[in-house]
Amino acid sequence: MYSLPDSANKLIDNFSRLPGIGRKTAQRLVFHLLSTDGELTYNLSDSLKDLKLKIKNCSICHGITESNPCKICSDPKRDDTLLCVVENPYDVFVFEKINSFMGKYHILGGVLSPLDGIGPDDLNIDSLLKRLEQGIEIIIATNPSVEGETTALYLAKILSDKNLSISKLARGIPVGSDLEYVDDATLIRAMEGRVSI
Amino acid sequence: MYSLPDSANKLIDNFSRLPGIGRKTAQRLVFHLLSTDGELTYNLSDSLKDLKLKIKNCSICHGITESNPCKICSDPKRDDTLLCVVENPYDVFVFEKINSFMGKYHILGGVLSPLDGIGPDDLNIDSLLKRLEQGIEIIIATNPSVEGETTALYLAKILSDKNLSISKLARGIPVGSDLEYVDDATLIRAMEGRVSI
Repeated sequence: MYSLPDSANKLIDNFSRLPGIGRKTAQRLVFHLLSTDGELTYNLSDSLKDLKLKIKNCSICHGITESNPCKICSDPKRDDTLLCVVENPYDVFVFEKINSFMGKYHILGGVLSPLDGIGPDDLNIDSLLKRLEQGIEIIIATNPSVEGETTALYLAKILSDKNLSISKLARGIPVGSDLEYVDDATLIRAMEGRVSI
Repeated sequence: MYSLPDSANKLIDNFSRLPGIGRKTAQRLVFHLLSTDGELTYNLSDSLKDLKLKIKNCSICHGITESNPCKICSDPKRDDTLLCVVENPYDVFVFEKINSFMGKYHILGGVLSPLDGIGPDDLNIDSLLKRLEQGIEIIIATNPSVEGETTALYLAKILSDKNLSISKLARGIPVGSDLEYVDDATLIRAMEGRVSI
């Protein structure tokens, strides 16, 4: 019994280390690349290398960027008094997509998770404290998970003596959903957070 | 609104050109690579380049290989009088997995498909004819699709005057399946090809 050539097996191994890609899918990708001309393969190889060589973390917000400080931190049209605190660099682009937030961001680089050994010192909290000035408004936009909520509470606590306006994202029924399919926890939060009309 | 850095977007574009990977999945892969250290990214980049640099087609069977002729064609323990004709190089590894075929292979490089403009001249048929010697047995193992069957019939026709033993894979009920779920065409072929017990 002969198996695939070594270089094909090595690429299958590497592909299957990516999330959501199993060995069968990895094999299919390699077979596809082998059946095409080299262009896509070389482009993919070069752009993978570029990703690691060009992308750095912004020294102010810790976001991903090719220039330092990043485009958002260095934009004079952005509101310096509004700071959205998010878990990871990709959340920034989730907010940028809605095109309605004109403040700046701060990336924590994770959430508090004692079980995984992640404490306050592992997050970008020191650099957040250094960015805080009088009159700034903080929006804590961690995920609505147990760890995300814990991190939000922790931040609210350590920021409480700084006389800042601190808020977090509203929890409630997602727009366009059906009441029948909304889970209990969300419905409870939607009732608690009801707004007068 | 700011989008992702250029090098991230370029990698997303390239990933989403792979089969079964849409833009959302590509984005998730890039975010994953950005959140890991560089090792996987560089390994992936290098192994992609290696794939195209190292893998060639065997000059005898047209299979994929890093050495020429390939390991199967150059193995003296392989039976030279038994030749399995398959559509593409990956079918070879499907047969090698079952570990029971000890002959050699010939890869057509596709199937006859007039609608796609693929005729006999586009397949490795000339080199197949050159490999045929008296007393050789040919197993035509194209896929059980319309194009695969057409190609098998075409090959059987042009090989008919060469006094060779020509066969194709048995069609029938897959082992371990349930009669209730076997499709009509397969059931008809299983009846036609019934064997005495």
